[in-house]
Amino acid sequence: MRAAVLAAVGEIEIVERPVPQPGPAEVLIEVRAVGVCGSDVHYYKHGRIGAHVVEGPLVLGHEAAGVVVGLGSNARRHAVGQRVSLEPGVPDLTCAQCRAGRYNLCPAMRFFGTPPIDGAFCEYVVLHEEFAHPVPDALTDEAAALLEPLSVGVWACRKARVARGDRVLVNGAGPIGLVAAQTALAFGATEVVITDVNPRRLALATELGCTRAVDVGVTELSALGFEPSVLLECSGHPAAIGAAVRLVVRAGRVVLVGMGGDDVPLPLPRVQEYELELTGTFRYANTWPTAIELAATGRVDLDRLVTGRFGLDEVERALTSARTDPGSIKPIVRPGG
Amino acid sequence: MRAAVLAAVGEIEIVERPVPQPGPAEVLIEVRAVGVCGSDVHYYKHGRIGAHVVEGPLVLGHEAAGVVVGLGSNARRHAVGQRVSLEPGVPDLTCAQCRAGRYNLCPAMRFFGTPPIDGAFCEYVVLHEEFAHPVPDALTDEAAALLEPLSVGVWACRKARVARGDRVLVNGAGPIGLVAAQTALAFGATEVVITDVNPRRLALATELGCTRAVDVGVTELSALGFEPSVLLECSGHPAAIGAAVRLVVRAGRVVLVGMGGDDVPLPLPRVQEYELELTGTFRYANTWPTAIELAATGRVDLDRLVTGRFGLDEVERALTSARTDPGSIKPIVRPGG
Amino acid sequence: MRAAVLAAVGEIEIVERPVPQPGPAEVLIEVRAVGVCGSDVHYYKHGRIGAHVVEGPLVLGHEAAGVVVGLGSNARRHAVGQRVSLEPGVPDLTCAQCRAGRYNLCPAMRFFGTPPIDGAFCEYVVLHEEFAHPVPDALTDEAAALLEPLSVGVWACRKARVARGDRVLVNGAGPIGLVAAQTALAFGATEVVITDVNPRRLALATELGCTRAVDVGVTELSALGFEPSVLLECSGHPAAIGAAVRLVVRAGRVVLVGMGGDDVPLPLPRVQEYELELTGTFRYANTWPTAIELAATGRVDLDRLVTGRFGLDEVERALTSARTDPGSIKPIVRPGG
Amino acid sequence: MRAAVLAAVGEIEIVERPVPQPGPAEVLIEVRAVGVCGSDVHYYKHGRIGAHVVEGPLVLGHEAAGVVVGLGSNARRHAVGQRVSLEPGVPDLTCAQCRAGRYNLCPAMRFFGTPPIDGAFCEYVVLHEEFAHPVPDALTDEAAALLEPLSVGVWACRKARVARGDRVLVNGAGPIGLVAAQTALAFGATEVVITDVNPRRLALATELGCTRAVDVGVTELSALGFEPSVLLECSGHPAAIGAAVRLVVRAGRVVLVGMGGDDVPLPLPRVQEYELELTGTFRYANTWPTAIELAATGRVDLDRLVTGRFGLDEVERALTSARTDPGSIKPIVRPGG
Repeated sequence: MRAAVLAAVGEIEIVERPVPQPGPAEVLIEVRAVGVCGSDVHYYKHGRIGAHVVEGPLVLGHEAAGVVVGLGSNARRHAVGQRVSLEPGVPDLTCAQCRAGRYNLCPAMRFFGTPPIDGAFCEYVVLHEEFAHPVPDALTDEAAALLEPLSVGVWACRKARVARGDRVLVNGAGPIGLVAAQTALAFGATEVVITDVNPRRLALATELGCTRAVDVGVTELSALGFEPSVLLECSGHPAAIGAAVRLVVRAGRVVLVGMGGDDVPLPLPRVQEYELELTGTFRYANTWPTAIELAATGRVDLDRLVTGRFGLDEVERALTSARTDPGSIKPIVRPGG
Repeated sequence: MRAAVLAAVGEIEIVERPVPQPGPAEVLIEVRAVGVCGSDVHYYKHGRIGAHVVEGPLVLGHEAAGVVVGLGSNARRHAVGQRVSLEPGVPDLTCAQCRAGRYNLCPAMRFFGTPPIDGAFCEYVVLHEEFAHPVPDALTDEAAALLEPLSVGVWACRKARVARGDRVLVNGAGPIGLVAAQTALAFGATEVVITDVNPRRLALATELGCTRAVDVGVTELSALGFEPSVLLECSGHPAAIGAAVRLVVRAGRVVLVGMGGDDVPLPLPRVQEYELELTGTFRYANTWPTAIELAATGRVDLDRLVTGRFGLDEVERALTSARTDPGSIKPIVRPGG
Repeated sequence: MRAAVLAAVGEIEIVERPVPQPGPAEVLIEVRAVGVCGSDVHYYKHGRIGAHVVEGPLVLGHEAAGVVVGLGSNARRHAVGQRVSLEPGVPDLTCAQCRAGRYNLCPAMRFFGTPPIDGAFCEYVVLHEEFAHPVPDALTDEAAALLEPLSVGVWACRKARVARGDRVLVNGAGPIGLVAAQTALAFGATEVVITDVNPRRLALATELGCTRAVDVGVTELSALGFEPSVLLECSGHPAAIGAAVRLVVRAGRVVLVGMGGDDVPLPLPRVQEYELELTGTFRYANTWPTAIELAATGRVDLDRLVTGRFGLDEVERALTSARTDPGSIKPIVRPGG
Repeated sequence: MRAAVLAAVGEIEIVERPVPQPGPAEVLIEVRAVGVCGSDVHYYKHGRIGAHVVEGPLVLGHEAAGVVVGLGSNARRHAVGQRVSLEPGVPDLTCAQCRAGRYNLCPAMRFFGTPPIDGAFCEYVVLHEEFAHPVPDALTDEAAALLEPLSVGVWACRKARVARGDRVLVNGAGPIGLVAAQTALAFGATEVVITDVNPRRLALATELGCTRAVDVGVTELSALGFEPSVLLECSGHPAAIGAAVRLVVRAGRVVLVGMGGDDVPLPLPRVQEYELELTGTFRYANTWPTAIELAATGRVDLDRLVTGRFGLDEVERALTSARTDPGSIKPIVRPGG
């Protein structure tokens, strides 16, 4: 099969590799659509994210959907031909974190496209059958792939306990901010205000249902008169984090989704005097059923996020466009062409 | 009656004032013992804490116990002669925060010794009868007064959900750290490691049951090999906060009790990758019953914290000793002499 | 003023009474609309509900809305002319339950139309200003009155933690079942199946958005193939309770809203083997803001529940119709005629 | 090896069987001590528990400890010679319940001594390495075996959220009641009142720290004046359940551990008016670390529960004594003699 391999920093090569063999509990999946994530771009440009360093050829891509085309010896969940969305991280299932239901925190997690585990920018992958989620016909292949970023939004809303009546501030209208905002609305948020400096993203946010989309290059957050009960921080910008935390009401919740740097200055007196609850998210756990329901019922529109389609030999262009085209939100790689 | 009044920054005067009259639901209390808190010292030295500015003569002191000596027209809870511990903040009881059980976050809170509300460095005070808590004979007047800082510790342990099996790191062995540590043990913590740079405080911490007391002037936190499930931050030192957060295990809880400055740098990647839950405490709510039980059963020793006793005309010395005497932990003012 | 008084079992008299005087924190309200509740009917027919016995003339009615026409000496929240929905139970605000945020469990609660506290089937009532909730123009007087039963539904959904993706079974399509079902949908439930034996109620339930309305006189619950994650029991029928509990999935939640008799047989093996969480609701706490939002945004339709309008001198007919007319769902008394 | 097999109702045979072979992730364990549980006795006498029917020869016994004597091909957690306590239920780890951290509710659970899965009344068993928990030297083999019933008590206290200050009523002073009571004390309960009709058990309960041990054959529960915040129901007697539920305070928690019959009458008005939270327990999840800590620190005394020791060929006597000897609490089978 063909695979797009990160051969060196800034260098993608198309190589021939053997089709992988599914283990006993695994299925073989023909990849149909893979979203390009900011982390893919980061590995491509820098060869590392924090402590995760690319030390050999690596296939990127972890937002994927495809069709089951082969079964491991004990795999019984799916029939060949089943369309599936890939949950791209498989934990060890037995450690203390997994047994407590926090399998996203499993120290032994094997996650697609994170060194040294290969991802999905290729024609075939294998995956534990229980992490291949059947998708209803209502979902396109691309929407099925984008259940992965939607899961990030679902997880953020769960961590924030978004419920009926909440007023939610979403910092950042990139792909994650856009799905988090839609999810917050579906969870019952009364108001969802989203911020960004990119007018196209803000326009899309409004179309997708946000109560208000604020260009923070023009308008100060503090001038909005908006008092969120929940902050979903999806920008990663240190200054934006601090400014947004200062708006949150007493006993409000702050969930840090976007990755900023280390040692971000936080207004701790506000956290203390208002007893804000602050946490971060690391991937997700048990989100696919909800994500599928949100997408299948139209509560979250994933197809609207797609801004480009690329073949396997255009992976490098896909990775570049994600950052260079101001209109780009979510490029999709389609290994089948 | 006589009252010790903060007349100007760094200047306490003893003045004569009329004995206050209890309102309908209030009781008149003869003050027996009042602990000196770091915030009293801060007002004395700086005339303000954050946005709270002393703008006229102010009686400080909010860790108080006494005896009911008079009843308001509708006050029925206590008999004259009842010994009580004072919960020094009375909320409006009807706002959204109060109605949700978070009365410590009531924006209309009237709190002893916080401008412009007078405190307890005086002979008599009035208080809503429901905020005057009867104390059992087993408690000394001084322990009854120190139920207030103990409440801070109880609240911190509740916010952190300290439970059987937790491994707790307490940053700072001042009065709050010492009660928080004892409370954590009483809540079932398996290990409680406390840190400070003051050897006397560390020695006392060990006597009070801490598993380990670490002089962080000598030993690096990260060298301990201790992996806390809970961090109770009672030091307020920005560098200590960051270093301690870096030790907390996956899904651990961090409660910020000590007040540091604004814009404290926090290791957000750790918060995110480990999905730490971080919050701060602002005073306390519904803590007196538990605090009384902890002190009355000997699970928490409050009397051991007392390091000096002062009459009303020695309030200035009491306020100074709290910071200047390295052996000082908790000075007590006894208005009755 | 005129008031409809329960003079004896089954006997309502219209009497003249003085207009009540608001206490310092109270407002005087001209009553515009009052819903008839099953408990009103029960008091009318039986003179008691459990331990609550009517021992003197009593004004019934606790689902009320009106206009502020007078202010107590310290009442500052509302202007004269403000339209308000009445939260009809005023707790003491200071007991342990109130301080913990569970004011609905206050042992000293004074609740409209519950002996010996008079209710709202009259021209004027007084109420603590903080329990008179301003309503937006979008709400009719009748919808404003029905925020009270909606609060019951909101409370049930909160107790059940209804969230995105839940499958909810609502037992009973009376007024409470109908608002609980709508609320569950607004809280994100994916499916809401409602049951009753009254075809008109079932038809209305479908119009109001229920996924499925099942006539349990015709169809066995167990034949549905429906596996609810949440059961909102609003029928109070012992047999229906047991049958429904047997359908709930592992770790599901059961909330008992409808009042059945004592010693209802429950399938405890199911509760144990599936670790179901079962609780009951007693009125509500902190529900008006959410109820107002649900009604004002059209997520819950309260006006559709109104099936009859009666003047003050028709209260007896209103009380009777609620039980005798099979099409009756919610009769409204309009004291102003 | 030798195994004690339930050959027919009321009939245990000692048979020779091959030593089992550990699967790749399993270890081979030489069994040292096995507690006799009421469910073993029930299978022995009735051949079934509810829907679980013994349909062929079955080895009973699920409270076990032993020594690792062999390793599966991928087993790496333990060295040969490691003493371990057996967590006797192995779930599939991948179903929705397992992934949510509720592995005790896994529909595919394979549980020792539950048909058709063999248990530990034999010389050797195999077990997934992650369900074999290393035990410290401080624990005897028998205490290590009794970590299983202790886990039931830990789970009950977790479900009840027993915490500092709780007043706990434990219905029934059998093995489970005795460990639940000790666990409640270790979790911070202020008072633990236990009931039974067996004076020896009540005497032991007092020795183990219960505040009060009440013979409910002599004293009415309602005469105690005890108002529990938590009820841990470990008797399974329908009448006792109802009587005890009627004592629980507002917002109290009720956990049903003991198995009663179906259709147990419950005082639902109390559940509703007091908004009690009621749930049941089914085995346990993630309890061994806490159970080990409780036993190793002496907070829970397991050895005191042992009232008889039997060899493998005395299993029938062990099963009988558990019910016939009034002084019997926990018989232990020691397959090694």
